Amino acid sequence: MIIKMKKTATKKQFEKLSAFLLAKNLEIRDVSSETVHIFGIIGDTSSFEPRDLYAFEGVDEVTRVSTPFKKASRIFKKTDTVIKFNNGVKIGDPHQFILMSGPCSVESYNQLKTIAQVVKESGAHILRGGAYKPRTSPYAFQGLEEEGLQILRKVADEFDLLVVSEIPSSSMLPLFEKYVDIIQIGARNMQNFELLKSLGKAKKPILLKRGLSATIEEWLMSAEYIMDGGNHQVILCERGIRTFEKYTRNTLDLSAVVAVKELSHLPVIVDPSHAAGRWEMIEKLALAGLTVGSDGLLIEVHHEPERALSDGAQSLKPKKYLQMTESLKKIADVLGKEII
Amino acid sequence: MIIKMKKTATKKQFEKLSAFLLAKNLEIRDVSSETVHIFGIIGDTSSFEPRDLYAFEGVDEVTRVSTPFKKASRIFKKTDTVIKFNNGVKIGDPHQFILMSGPCSVESYNQLKTIAQVVKESGAHILRGGAYKPRTSPYAFQGLEEEGLQILRKVADEFDLLVVSEIPSSSMLPLFEKYVDIIQIGARNMQNFELLKSLGKAKKPILLKRGLSATIEEWLMSAEYIMDGGNHQVILCERGIRTFEKYTRNTLDLSAVVAVKELSHLPVIVDPSHAAGRWEMIEKLALAGLTVGSDGLLIEVHHEPERALSDGAQSLKPKKYLQMTESLKKIADVLGKEII
Amino acid sequence: MIIKMKKTATKKQFEKLSAFLLAKNLEIRDVSSETVHIFGIIGDTSSFEPRDLYAFEGVDEVTRVSTPFKKASRIFKKTDTVIKFNNGVKIGDPHQFILMSGPCSVESYNQLKTIAQVVKESGAHILRGGAYKPRTSPYAFQGLEEEGLQILRKVADEFDLLVVSEIPSSSMLPLFEKYVDIIQIGARNMQNFELLKSLGKAKKPILLKRGLSATIEEWLMSAEYIMDGGNHQVILCERGIRTFEKYTRNTLDLSAVVAVKELSHLPVIVDPSHAAGRWEMIEKLALAGLTVGSDGLLIEVHHEPERALSDGAQSLKPKKYLQMTESLKKIADVLGKEII
Amino acid sequence: MIIKMKKTATKKQFEKLSAFLLAKNLEIRDVSSETVHIFGIIGDTSSFEPRDLYAFEGVDEVTRVSTPFKKASRIFKKTDTVIKFNNGVKIGDPHQFILMSGPCSVESYNQLKTIAQVVKESGAHILRGGAYKPRTSPYAFQGLEEEGLQILRKVADEFDLLVVSEIPSSSMLPLFEKYVDIIQIGARNMQNFELLKSLGKAKKPILLKRGLSATIEEWLMSAEYIMDGGNHQVILCERGIRTFEKYTRNTLDLSAVVAVKELSHLPVIVDPSHAAGRWEMIEKLALAGLTVGSDGLLIEVHHEPERALSDGAQSLKPKKYLQMTESLKKIADVLGKEII
Repeated sequence: MIIKMKKTATKKQFEKLSAFLLAKNLEIRDVSSETVHIFGIIGDTSSFEPRDLYAFEGVDEVTRVSTPFKKASRIFKKTDTVIKFNNGVKIGDPHQFILMSGPCSVESYNQLKTIAQVVKESGAHILRGGAYKPRTSPYAFQGLEEEGLQILRKVADEFDLLVVSEIPSSSMLPLFEKYVDIIQIGARNMQNFELLKSLGKAKKPILLKRGLSATIEEWLMSAEYIMDGGNHQVILCERGIRTFEKYTRNTLDLSAVVAVKELSHLPVIVDPSHAAGRWEMIEKLALAGLTVGSDGLLIEVHHEPERALSDGAQSLKPKKYLQMTESLKKIADVLGKEII
Repeated sequence: MIIKMKKTATKKQFEKLSAFLLAKNLEIRDVSSETVHIFGIIGDTSSFEPRDLYAFEGVDEVTRVSTPFKKASRIFKKTDTVIKFNNGVKIGDPHQFILMSGPCSVESYNQLKTIAQVVKESGAHILRGGAYKPRTSPYAFQGLEEEGLQILRKVADEFDLLVVSEIPSSSMLPLFEKYVDIIQIGARNMQNFELLKSLGKAKKPILLKRGLSATIEEWLMSAEYIMDGGNHQVILCERGIRTFEKYTRNTLDLSAVVAVKELSHLPVIVDPSHAAGRWEMIEKLALAGLTVGSDGLLIEVHHEPERALSDGAQSLKPKKYLQMTESLKKIADVLGKEII
Repeated sequence: MIIKMKKTATKKQFEKLSAFLLAKNLEIRDVSSETVHIFGIIGDTSSFEPRDLYAFEGVDEVTRVSTPFKKASRIFKKTDTVIKFNNGVKIGDPHQFILMSGPCSVESYNQLKTIAQVVKESGAHILRGGAYKPRTSPYAFQGLEEEGLQILRKVADEFDLLVVSEIPSSSMLPLFEKYVDIIQIGARNMQNFELLKSLGKAKKPILLKRGLSATIEEWLMSAEYIMDGGNHQVILCERGIRTFEKYTRNTLDLSAVVAVKELSHLPVIVDPSHAAGRWEMIEKLALAGLTVGSDGLLIEVHHEPERALSDGAQSLKPKKYLQMTESLKKIADVLGKEII
Repeated sequence: MIIKMKKTATKKQFEKLSAFLLAKNLEIRDVSSETVHIFGIIGDTSSFEPRDLYAFEGVDEVTRVSTPFKKASRIFKKTDTVIKFNNGVKIGDPHQFILMSGPCSVESYNQLKTIAQVVKESGAHILRGGAYKPRTSPYAFQGLEEEGLQILRKVADEFDLLVVSEIPSSSMLPLFEKYVDIIQIGARNMQNFELLKSLGKAKKPILLKRGLSATIEEWLMSAEYIMDGGNHQVILCERGIRTFEKYTRNTLDLSAVVAVKELSHLPVIVDPSHAAGRWEMIEKLALAGLTVGSDGLLIEVHHEPERALSDGAQSLKPKKYLQMTESLKKIADVLGKEII
């Protein structure tokens, strides 16, 4: 951490601050020039945030120079984290490109079965589907709840697929551990710290969606919460950030995939469906998600999008979805990856 | 809702859509020109979101023309909501300007007592203090938890003050109903819908902080969730939004106060401490919060900010805090309001 | 400037960088800990930007610790800049609160005369009006151009007012120096560096609007461009920033006023009309602009807003405008300021 | 355009508005429900902006339902615009993928020659290089100016390359028409309307960079300004938008490429160098730029990035640059495109 004092800072103010730092077993090293009083502090500063030091009068600017996340950082673990499942799926493996496909919401056994068949046909091994839907309006469809989870499990088993679904609160953990293979944390819960803490105790991998306006650092800090609880099986998911653009629902941030791959060892999945919010754009963005280096895609598929109870606008029909997987395979071939 | 069809839309596509709308008992009224096919739909559209209609092929743009919130809207309730307490405090009353003051975190009985004395001296009637702290880092101080709530209650009772504190998850509701007078929902939980639903059943008023990047509409929709559950005692709190600016922690959005007062009947409180993140700026922003028409302030006060376990940088020392309340009183006089 | 090397940086990479820095007469001071290689560089670094150093392999992070602006900074000039005019107006004087009022666009001699009368009546001394209008659409009204400037001058002289108007490009400078008293740079030209350089040679004060998404630092760097050219008479103008909010046209950033007053000695004016884009909100925001510590307001007034050729939505009618100035006077009295 | 009246709107207010609209030869068609008064207006509304109507009392919301751009819109011209050059380059042709490569700044004849050799070797046909550099700081290197343009032309001719370079102001147009083949408008000048108007008269194609916080609609409206002046040879360039992320310089918005291809017939180029600001990320983003459907790339190349006078951090060294073009070729093959 680097601290710059104000021009007007007094000697007494500096002494008060340095006493505080020394009491924390930190070392102070001066880097002042003739015009500016600056020093670095060396040691473990994880117990406070840089801005806490602004409480000291005379402090002008505090800059952190080391990353605040540890367990999620590539500095602390150099090799890629690979999350393995019984059916051969390895999320994070450089030779696999994972598809997690299915409807936005589970609506009925028949609906899910129809879609699961297409998912299976495409070569995908993971079925997605929401049972508890976080909706902006209390008057909109909120999901089938436990019944939805039961349908998900049943259909997935029939087709030998894995299941990923979003958890709404920590009290549902036993239910999710019973029915699903990967537990998803939604974008709006990325900084629901109680939920993060409880999923740190879960025995299933966690798919952590990036918050709507979260920085990469905040996203990795949320992963850190889960990992600090003991669960190191975290999959990051880029799903678009909020920008000033209105044509798309959100703005898919593909450069974040490249950045996260440099900063962290965790696998990263791309969700073009929620990002664009328009099915016409999905195929192009899916291809870009592949070439930019992500580990897979979360894709919404629906055989009757007009009748979907949520997010029909961004769902691919079976034919378009299978076209997209064909396009993906051609590029994946060049990159030495298998679509799975 | 107004729907515009694509240039390339077929008659069949339009018929599919209109059949869907008619089945929902909606009426279709055409407004097309020679070059554009547009129509309005009339009736109750609250069960779906405008973007759901993009699932229909041929649809180009869907625009909502009525507000999605009802119970929170001034259209549905014209008079200001005033939340009354036994000690004479009336949040939302045009002649009162409410101060909710205290430390960011409850740290000990002695700390809180020292600060509560200053709060009392300033004429404020509500004591703020955090017992469960949502921190970006799992390694930072997380609050005294239940012990913190007990201290809050004890000290508040000694000084005859009301208490406001942030709830971390719905499982804590019984604890909060026991110890506090106003339950705060933090900015990062503004769209934690499970929490909103459970607080809709709470018997205490709710202070709903605006999310870091939330629009005013989303903020009011979150209030709607609480009100839809049966709890109409919602106080909105503007606490700064995320912008590109780095000098301040967040950007206090005072024009949102004016906007919310037009759109809704709910009271609005301003939190300049979290917004600015720098104590030097608090007084000016507090004065602006008063003149812009809010119903009160949430202010961080600490007798030893350098020793605060969180947010010392934005806490006012007692002397500065009392100076600020003096300045507020002079302006409040002109506006016919009492600082309370 | 503080430089942190990557974990993987080699000795050779560091030597290449340090040779470069030493050649620029900079001094290197080490602040490394056992785990991180960090050093500060001392001396004049204004000839390069921090990010230029990322070109050196092995560099992980570069942080600037001194402000990049000098002439605009309060560190280099402690006393407030006050810009004085012949008619007694002193922009930046702590006892004056300046009103610059008038229509968005000059439309005709009669229109401007009608409005100027109201402006005069309110006690204001500066008339605003656009002759060259920067419009998003090439098909919208673009202003009366030189004729507009002539009308502005004529009407202002009749009422003994000063004139402020926006310049569209540096080629118009002679015209503006002839007709106006304060030359305005529009938000979209805040980083039109050729224009900034040419206005650095102008003999009139410059009103520099903040760009739609500009940080405070970028805004002050644009002021620095003008001052570096020799013209130190710069007035900053906060006019709202772009945020995710749609209810208002822009979001008025009143905390930027407090921040700029700390960072710089230049006067700051607030434009609530462009920020809100809704006349109903102007009075409240104007009052907040006063209490937050700005030096004055830029206000749109029109006697027939429905017939205005631009921005009628945010223009106050004469009666409302005069009501607003009355409200301002009451608060200004408490603050020891005169509305002028 | 759809207009919604306020609940409180009077009959007289509506009549005032409708008189105004009828006088503009617009037709009014009612879509009101029992609770809301709404109507559409039909006819040419390009002479005013939706928000101008807020000037009428009683108006609650105005929504535009047709795009404000015409000449740039795919509705008005269905086939892709292809910009052809003598040397066989066709920007916008579905079978070509264009590389525009070179240094950020022209620094000397020798520097540019060394880099141009690499550019030629890669198969690219267009050389990029800045002669007038828009820098945030007045103290940073501002470019070689006319000498830079002369060097650009000389070196390009030696290698039989085309030249693209950024113009700082309209007064430089004769110089740019003499020396360069494609005239670039920088991001900060995207809404410098005087410059847009003057380039509407230019005889060379224009490369229009997207503004830092511009929406797609604003970007296309700026293209419209140029086209409305008579110059239809406009190439759009996505170069990253400002977001809250700090790890990258800007956030490359690849979904904007997909969106613009739907909305407009103009070619789109991607600039990953300025967007990421970090050379390590360029290759991945370049590949994604190809698969997402853009027409080419703007790439910074430098043989000695550490000595570059600007933007060394984002410049690829020759070896890395040639590696990247090899990777591009493999994917381009699959897509039926030639790297040129």
